[in-house]
Amino acid sequence: MPAQRQLRLGAFMRPVSIHTGAWRYPGAQRDANFNYPALRRYAQTLERARFDAFFMADHLALLNMPIEALKRSHTATSFEPFTLLSALSQATERIGLVATASTTFDEPFHVARRFASLDHLSAGRAGWNIVTTANPDAALNFGRTEQPDHALRYARAREFYDVVTGLWDSWADDAFVRDADSGVYFDPARLHTLDHRGEHLSVKGPLHIARPVQGWPVIVQAGASEPGRQLAAETAEVIFAAQPTLADGRAFYADVKGRMDRLGRNRDHLKILPGALVVVGETAEAARAIRARLDSLVHEQSAIASLSIALGCDASRFDPDGRLPPIPETNASKSSRERVLRLAEEEGLTVRQLAQRLGGYGGLAFVGTARQIADQMQQWLELEGADGFNVMFPWLPGGLDAFVADVIPELQGRGLFRREYEGSTLREHLGLPRPENRHFR
Amino acid sequence: MPAQRQLRLGAFMRPVSIHTGAWRYPGAQRDANFNYPALRRYAQTLERARFDAFFMADHLALLNMPIEALKRSHTATSFEPFTLLSALSQATERIGLVATASTTFDEPFHVARRFASLDHLSAGRAGWNIVTTANPDAALNFGRTEQPDHALRYARAREFYDVVTGLWDSWADDAFVRDADSGVYFDPARLHTLDHRGEHLSVKGPLHIARPVQGWPVIVQAGASEPGRQLAAETAEVIFAAQPTLADGRAFYADVKGRMDRLGRNRDHLKILPGALVVVGETAEAARAIRARLDSLVHEQSAIASLSIALGCDASRFDPDGRLPPIPETNASKSSRERVLRLAEEEGLTVRQLAQRLGGYGGLAFVGTARQIADQMQQWLELEGADGFNVMFPWLPGGLDAFVADVIPELQGRGLFRREYEGSTLREHLGLPRPENRHFR
Repeated sequence: MPAQRQLRLGAFMRPVSIHTGAWRYPGAQRDANFNYPALRRYAQTLERARFDAFFMADHLALLNMPIEALKRSHTATSFEPFTLLSALSQATERIGLVATASTTFDEPFHVARRFASLDHLSAGRAGWNIVTTANPDAALNFGRTEQPDHALRYARAREFYDVVTGLWDSWADDAFVRDADSGVYFDPARLHTLDHRGEHLSVKGPLHIARPVQGWPVIVQAGASEPGRQLAAETAEVIFAAQPTLADGRAFYADVKGRMDRLGRNRDHLKILPGALVVVGETAEAARAIRARLDSLVHEQSAIASLSIALGCDASRFDPDGRLPPIPETNASKSSRERVLRLAEEEGLTVRQLAQRLGGYGGLAFVGTARQIADQMQQWLELEGADGFNVMFPWLPGGLDAFVADVIPELQGRGLFRREYEGSTLREHLGLPRPENRHFR
Repeated sequence: MPAQRQLRLGAFMRPVSIHTGAWRYPGAQRDANFNYPALRRYAQTLERARFDAFFMADHLALLNMPIEALKRSHTATSFEPFTLLSALSQATERIGLVATASTTFDEPFHVARRFASLDHLSAGRAGWNIVTTANPDAALNFGRTEQPDHALRYARAREFYDVVTGLWDSWADDAFVRDADSGVYFDPARLHTLDHRGEHLSVKGPLHIARPVQGWPVIVQAGASEPGRQLAAETAEVIFAAQPTLADGRAFYADVKGRMDRLGRNRDHLKILPGALVVVGETAEAARAIRARLDSLVHEQSAIASLSIALGCDASRFDPDGRLPPIPETNASKSSRERVLRLAEEEGLTVRQLAQRLGGYGGLAFVGTARQIADQMQQWLELEGADGFNVMFPWLPGGLDAFVADVIPELQGRGLFRREYEGSTLREHLGLPRPENRHFR
């Protein structure tokens, strides 16, 4: 019997939850931003459930929203990813640890070094989520007056990737001989100096840290734009995808894997994992009720403002308890506008509910029983919409605990998800090869 | 009875040791650079001995020495400090964790954030060793063609300090109200935006991380130049001093504390801790034999090259087994030359032994029985040459274990060092006040 395709599961974590109303949910860990024992427990729970990775989002500024909305957000503050994941590397043994680092506002020498260090500390469990940082406020924290434009950010990102992976190849795996008799600590012939001089970056090297356990930490990306897809097809090993429907997901999957074919890359060497909010209940009604309650905790005024942006018209004029009236075409993005209109129609939401849905979390969501959720995940896998998911929990700890208690066994029972880790590194979990050192065999 | 002045003890750590021959010493942990369990054991041993801090040195490039010497050095590679100390923060409960970060090759927003995060993870045990990075090779790893000059590095360092401490004051300690009923997560009136625009740095802020547990992590510096001393007198709370004799140490101590008096700073709010290599033996002879053996493991040819630099003449012409011949005055620094000549004379060293002494570790060293070492530490304390020491161990784990087993009880018996931690934060260990937030009371 041929081995069944397996789901890969990352947990896309914000300490309190991705859902903006989550901190107000009864039983939520409101202070998780600085509650390390809570975060440790989440990571350990995810490891017991055999998740591939614990994935930390990141920002380099306060989120750019009006202060009246921001003051209601639990995203204002949290641990820095490297310090947090380094701590978690000692509280876990197998789960991968994916940190976000910006190619626009950091230095490749620092980034290469930190990921190499995390990979050594975790015995081969590090992954680098490459971002170019879209929030324009970040530039102001790094001595710039404005954000570099999209094309420039992506050109630098491509070169940054070359430099970082080049630095990781500074040392052969067997460079450190530590021969006490002769007094030779390393073999200079097994050390390579990068000497990169490019359009955006000049970095001499070598990196003063041994080659990472995984050769290179796993490369993760999330860009969905044209240059983002091309960069991913060339370099990524995991994509955090964001298509909101199976049809969109299949189109994205076919596009990126097709680019890989044309580049001569093995399409199995990149795992496409859409982000998905998963709300599980004992019945479909119970799951929907959890979500409705969560959405109701989103601040109405801020939510209406988001709805206005999505529709391209002033939604505060509408009766919040009524249905959305017909909306003429506007300057708003057509696809996002249509998606909002379809959502309101399909679920029969009032204006307030629609606004709070979008304000809470507007992306792909699986809401139902464990069986229904597993059905949908299986469908995405089998129809090549995904190789797995970056799961987001509606609130913590309850939403995470429910996923682990109910959905994981259902997936395991179908043979779609591991019962035990087969390997020890993140690459091994994901079925990715260890990159050869370009200078040494 | 008035309380006796207490010694403060940091452990100045390189994973294998500061001594360049240490990795060849019988029983040494040669692979400690990437042996996290060994480093964890060191930190836990130091904590049981009630050390104030575990202090990580750092470099931003391979050490700039000829490859023939470098290949014999165990300093070529190691963990990055933040990842390592974050891991250690979870293996320890009380000991301070001091990381080095450069004001020349890093961004104040990143530095402020990482130290704040480490301070939260460790419940108030972080310290920042501010360095301007002297190794000219570092510049080449960060897109520069040459090292910024000394004056420019110090001017930027001073401004960098203002920005980092300003960012730490972004939030009032009580800013995060997390009121689920009203839906307000933080009080915008308790948030301050720095908006710094200076000569070297522009940083808007605010920092998106709550104020550190200690208010500010402890500020550590090591500069001994004129601008370095002035920066320390204005801003430092710990100085890693490097004077090789008690007379020099007293002059430095008086100079820096005098500068503080003139600035109106309380002189107790800065602890001067010279680095000292401590080699303890059951007898004075045994201790000297340990050191002689260690020095003998330093590569002779590299050591002779160092001696040539110190003397300003070609030392390879001399008989390595003979005494140093009379040396005429040269262009070499007069004080370093005289110190070398005095050392050769006082200890009756051959040319080879002298070279290996300097090549192994040329700075202040206490070599003797626990009682003799305690006598010297007490003398430095009482004569105001030091407020304590940054202890360096000749080899690990043996040299560290011997210090903890023999010297610590001797110091405790004299009432010079704590038997239990009195507080929980690094500031409390060092007797330093928690800085008030400049914007909020």
